[in-house]
Amino acid sequence: MTITITAFEASPDEGQGMARDMRVRWALEEVGQPYEVRLLTFEQMKQPAHLAHQPFGQIPTYEEGDLVLFETGAIVFHIAERFPGLLPGEPDARARAIAWTFAALNTVEPPIVEREAFEILEKDKPWHQARLPILDERVRVRLGQLSTRLGDAEWIDGAFSAADVHMVTVLRRTEPGLLEEFPNLPAYIARGEARPAYRRAFADQLEVFKQAQARR
Amino acid sequence: MTITITAFEASPDEGQGMARDMRVRWALEEVGQPYEVRLLTFEQMKQPAHLAHQPFGQIPTYEEGDLVLFETGAIVFHIAERFPGLLPGEPDARARAIAWTFAALNTVEPPIVEREAFEILEKDKPWHQARLPILDERVRVRLGQLSTRLGDAEWIDGAFSAADVHMVTVLRRTEPGLLEEFPNLPAYIARGEARPAYRRAFADQLEVFKQAQARR
Repeated sequence: MTITITAFEASPDEGQGMARDMRVRWALEEVGQPYEVRLLTFEQMKQPAHLAHQPFGQIPTYEEGDLVLFETGAIVFHIAERFPGLLPGEPDARARAIAWTFAALNTVEPPIVEREAFEILEKDKPWHQARLPILDERVRVRLGQLSTRLGDAEWIDGAFSAADVHMVTVLRRTEPGLLEEFPNLPAYIARGEARPAYRRAFADQLEVFKQAQARR
Repeated sequence: MTITITAFEASPDEGQGMARDMRVRWALEEVGQPYEVRLLTFEQMKQPAHLAHQPFGQIPTYEEGDLVLFETGAIVFHIAERFPGLLPGEPDARARAIAWTFAALNTVEPPIVEREAFEILEKDKPWHQARLPILDERVRVRLGQLSTRLGDAEWIDGAFSAADVHMVTVLRRTEPGLLEEFPNLPAYIARGEARPAYRRAFADQLEVFKQAQARR
């Protein structure tokens, strides 16, 4: 059955791999599954056809036969259950990899995305300068706790898993200065970025952006 | 094997069921599993013994034999996989219930928690009044999309599932005025709160707070 995902026709990150289709592409490359991509404009993302698949008007979605899924966390988990390579077989190790998936998305990502959104959406507000250190500190607390736990391990809990797909891509969204206060975190990101599956996924999403540019 | 969870010795929400052990208690009541609770002070939550179980110093954790889990999303999912009653058996319906779990935690909850934290932590900042409508609007967008999708359905996707445990408890954290702009959402919360399993879980966590008060 063909797997089809959706992605931005022209990603606002200009092909830096920050859009969430990158996580799904990476997961699919790790398990060696081919997939098709349907590109959507911002206009199309607000239309009923897309909202029927994704009630919050976001990308990516995942289609496979009659199954339509949304939420990157759920899509990567579905891929990991469906094909070997992204979750340990041993039940306790599997449960811990799922725990780290939720930790990436529900504990580490929110303060990072909050800071990122503040930078973009409230750049010109009179409170911007005074408030930024509050957000930096929230991100720093989470990065510090994560850095302590990671230590000199290669991946977040045992072998590479879906949890690392999420954690590496979540950390890539962090303000660079903050990240470098914890040297094992940029090194962890670099290990993720060096994986052949990551590189293929990154090249593919960058190509989409280049083609969008060429059309303009 | 005994299941043991951790919870606040004295929850900052004063027993309103907003702390995340409520979600785990509710899930365990739905599947009819007894459990023990180990209460932690804020001081104990920062100690190495707890950080070894929960690297971010939060509650709840879940212990069952050698397995130690953290992240409410992962704990409720583990319970749902381990015992019948919280996930559909049909594979596509199961995948969609997992998608709605992630939607509750990664799409609906972040703006709600951001607004809540802003109310508490930046109450006295000079930008408080001017910035609050920005956060209200972000919550309103998500609630509107969720309300549209829910329509007049009883639960978020087919039969009651783990996704509803998360979505109902996430929505309970919303500022009441905002929530009432979308009348099907308070009605959905009320259906969750009326479930016998919810009521037992709520009573148990309230009792913990009452006992903490009695000791003071």
